[in-house]
Amino acid sequence: MSERKKRYFLAEEEIPRYWYNIQADMKTKPMPPLNPATHQPLKPEDMYPIFAEELCRQELNQTDTWIEIPGPVREMYKYYRSTPLVRAYGLEEALDTPAHIYFKNESVSPIGSHKLNSALAQAYYCKQEGVTNVTTETGAGQWGAALSYAAKVFGLEAAVYQVKISYEQKPYRRSIMQTFGAQVTASPSMSTRAGKDILTVNPNYQGSLGTAISEAIELARMTPNCKYTLGSVLSHVTLHQTIIGLEAEKQMEMAGEYPDMIIGCFGGGSNFGGICFPFMRHTILEGRKTRYIAAEPASCPKLTRGKFQYDFGDEAGYTPLLPMFTLGHNFAPAHIHAGGLRYHGAGVIVSQLLKDKLMEAVDIQQLESFEAGCLFARAEGIIPAPESCHAIASAIREAKLCKESGESKVILFNLSGHGLIDMASYDKYLAGDLVNYSLTDEDIQKNLEEIKGI
Amino acid sequence: MSERKKRYFLAEEEIPRYWYNIQADMKTKPMPPLNPATHQPLKPEDMYPIFAEELCRQELNQTDTWIEIPGPVREMYKYYRSTPLVRAYGLEEALDTPAHIYFKNESVSPIGSHKLNSALAQAYYCKQEGVTNVTTETGAGQWGAALSYAAKVFGLEAAVYQVKISYEQKPYRRSIMQTFGAQVTASPSMSTRAGKDILTVNPNYQGSLGTAISEAIELARMTPNCKYTLGSVLSHVTLHQTIIGLEAEKQMEMAGEYPDMIIGCFGGGSNFGGICFPFMRHTILEGRKTRYIAAEPASCPKLTRGKFQYDFGDEAGYTPLLPMFTLGHNFAPAHIHAGGLRYHGAGVIVSQLLKDKLMEAVDIQQLESFEAGCLFARAEGIIPAPESCHAIASAIREAKLCKESGESKVILFNLSGHGLIDMASYDKYLAGDLVNYSLTDEDIQKNLEEIKGI
Repeated sequence: MSERKKRYFLAEEEIPRYWYNIQADMKTKPMPPLNPATHQPLKPEDMYPIFAEELCRQELNQTDTWIEIPGPVREMYKYYRSTPLVRAYGLEEALDTPAHIYFKNESVSPIGSHKLNSALAQAYYCKQEGVTNVTTETGAGQWGAALSYAAKVFGLEAAVYQVKISYEQKPYRRSIMQTFGAQVTASPSMSTRAGKDILTVNPNYQGSLGTAISEAIELARMTPNCKYTLGSVLSHVTLHQTIIGLEAEKQMEMAGEYPDMIIGCFGGGSNFGGICFPFMRHTILEGRKTRYIAAEPASCPKLTRGKFQYDFGDEAGYTPLLPMFTLGHNFAPAHIHAGGLRYHGAGVIVSQLLKDKLMEAVDIQQLESFEAGCLFARAEGIIPAPESCHAIASAIREAKLCKESGESKVILFNLSGHGLIDMASYDKYLAGDLVNYSLTDEDIQKNLEEIKGI
Repeated sequence: MSERKKRYFLAEEEIPRYWYNIQADMKTKPMPPLNPATHQPLKPEDMYPIFAEELCRQELNQTDTWIEIPGPVREMYKYYRSTPLVRAYGLEEALDTPAHIYFKNESVSPIGSHKLNSALAQAYYCKQEGVTNVTTETGAGQWGAALSYAAKVFGLEAAVYQVKISYEQKPYRRSIMQTFGAQVTASPSMSTRAGKDILTVNPNYQGSLGTAISEAIELARMTPNCKYTLGSVLSHVTLHQTIIGLEAEKQMEMAGEYPDMIIGCFGGGSNFGGICFPFMRHTILEGRKTRYIAAEPASCPKLTRGKFQYDFGDEAGYTPLLPMFTLGHNFAPAHIHAGGLRYHGAGVIVSQLLKDKLMEAVDIQQLESFEAGCLFARAEGIIPAPESCHAIASAIREAKLCKESGESKVILFNLSGHGLIDMASYDKYLAGDLVNYSLTDEDIQKNLEEIKGI
């Protein structure tokens, strides 16, 4: 066996010092979020009561291409960044494809996913502005775990509302948050009015992300020096995630190749945008031909089958109105095991890019995603998160096409996280207990009808 | 915050090309393993029916200081090695100690622990010698997971006997093995005579490592082209693990420091020997003063309270007689959550080194180990395996002594694995449901009496 270069790392001094703000380069800027009462464009200060002020400014910043990463955040990045860029020789051999497959391995973060990239930034800005407590919601718990640790790093107390069904069914992620010292509450809870109201009507309600968001926002509003944080969808979260693509750009250069296509799984858009945007800069500014493929679950197909319009970011309708591809904020996705992809809408930047055909989207069925995950695990030794399995499945589809055509295309995908806390899902897949979920056009249309008046 | 170097990596070409065989350098060589029937020193060929031949030769090799790492094994190492050497600034700050604390992070292996370093080597040699199937036993499942993946890499089929109580209580590790394509059987099983015999007498027996070993050996013996593999204790396993210390040596040089003490948790000795032996070379050959500290659980104190004598390596007495510090091969350790440290004896090399006072040992109670693990998690963001918590606890003790004395000693410990599959144990600790286990001198003496005649 000849010696082959497998992994590419950056020296610590090469870790990027700026995040990339694609909004500044976009020829068609995203439409503004609107105040739902007045339908006026939102200003940063409208969001100050809820988010750290710097995050509100980043959210709406359409002018500064590069945002400096604060020193203390960059110091923390050094504990796990650069993450490796890996040439997936094992997967290439398993598929017998001439394609060159690379993946950026975000699963090596101490938290096990890319979520920490933004959690550290959000916790830092909160601390800088005198905040003492942060709140958030979490479903499966990836984001909650990242925020719990980031809060600890910057000396903040964290309160996490975890969707009750996950709190009970995925106890390990709850334990991780508690080990980091966070207060974790099953949502709906009696600790907020929103929770109490729901429990009064339905004492056995198993919770939803929408309810958990309401509880976390309410707690942030009612508590002095307390802010709310969010793990995806918003533009400032994706901004922080561009560290992934900025590193990958340098690492691909070390490998002497440039991707023909870049693939990320898609929930709210932060890991997809994180890896793609720094490359997309060259498409926007220099006309470089690269495909950007968002892989979403077939059971929650906002990009492939949703509609571009103003909608709420949460089920309860507490957020500003966001211009996005959506299935309707009251869309209830099937209980697929990729919990992180069960979200009704796409972030405003990605929505505009899809509208402008700068990117494309594919939908992946649950069984295909787990089949891809198992193949990847056996070939590369890493058990991928069920969310990341969607990106892998899309990469495999493309690599098979290369085999048919004989082309050695360069495929780059983001391995957003590992699946070690999701083994119960793999168990079910291996036992043949998982199913695909299909939505009829009627299902989708009916749900979209309900938000027509917004 | 000033910029500080956090992590040290080696370039791929710097990854060691040889394992270090400390037996060649030891002034007092380990005493030979004995054939239990004849009490004659074991020859490599006596073990050929069970292990790959090259492994048998490595086991008893007392002459070659450096053993070349086969190309294909080194190619696989590149997927996760070098592992980072990390300066634990967070832990230093949490302890307010002048000590400089470093840890070698083996938890970043795809399998989550150092076990893969030997699994890849063992699977490779089996493949080279025409073996098609490998067997092993596993308790908590760290070794079983590593072997399952390594077998897949080299195109072997793996059959793992997992202690029944773990198979049922820790289903995630079983799922990991199955995801890698291994056949996992709860032991005792009806698939072997050893298993059948036990089940006939006691249908509800929850299994033990000893029984699982017997089943795995029996399957290897009864199956053509099938060999048995082991994850610790034996000298060839520790040989493969010296990759840890060889890398750490170069990385400490990059950091411009040399450890005053090196700490590893201790089960059979492979992770401890792996990190220590390459440094100990300088103590043996050049008289360099470095402390080597094995951290064992107080509930299984073979090094601190056991006896040096010939004993069997397994409960059933199927193995050769090994000269080692032991609590007796029929010692039943308490059900602490650091399953990987629940072994009655120490490897023959480490036993000789302890006898010769080249190293020292400390015992750590369960509650202290988890307290250390939680402190580490909050300070460094990584949830350590319950086994690794013992090394961390010992490092914390030493760092606190430095605070008292005002000395800036350099402490290096091995983070052998992460604890993401052990969150149920952390749950119990955080809920106050874990206890310490104490052994009276009488308990220990009584058990040692039983093996007096060996």
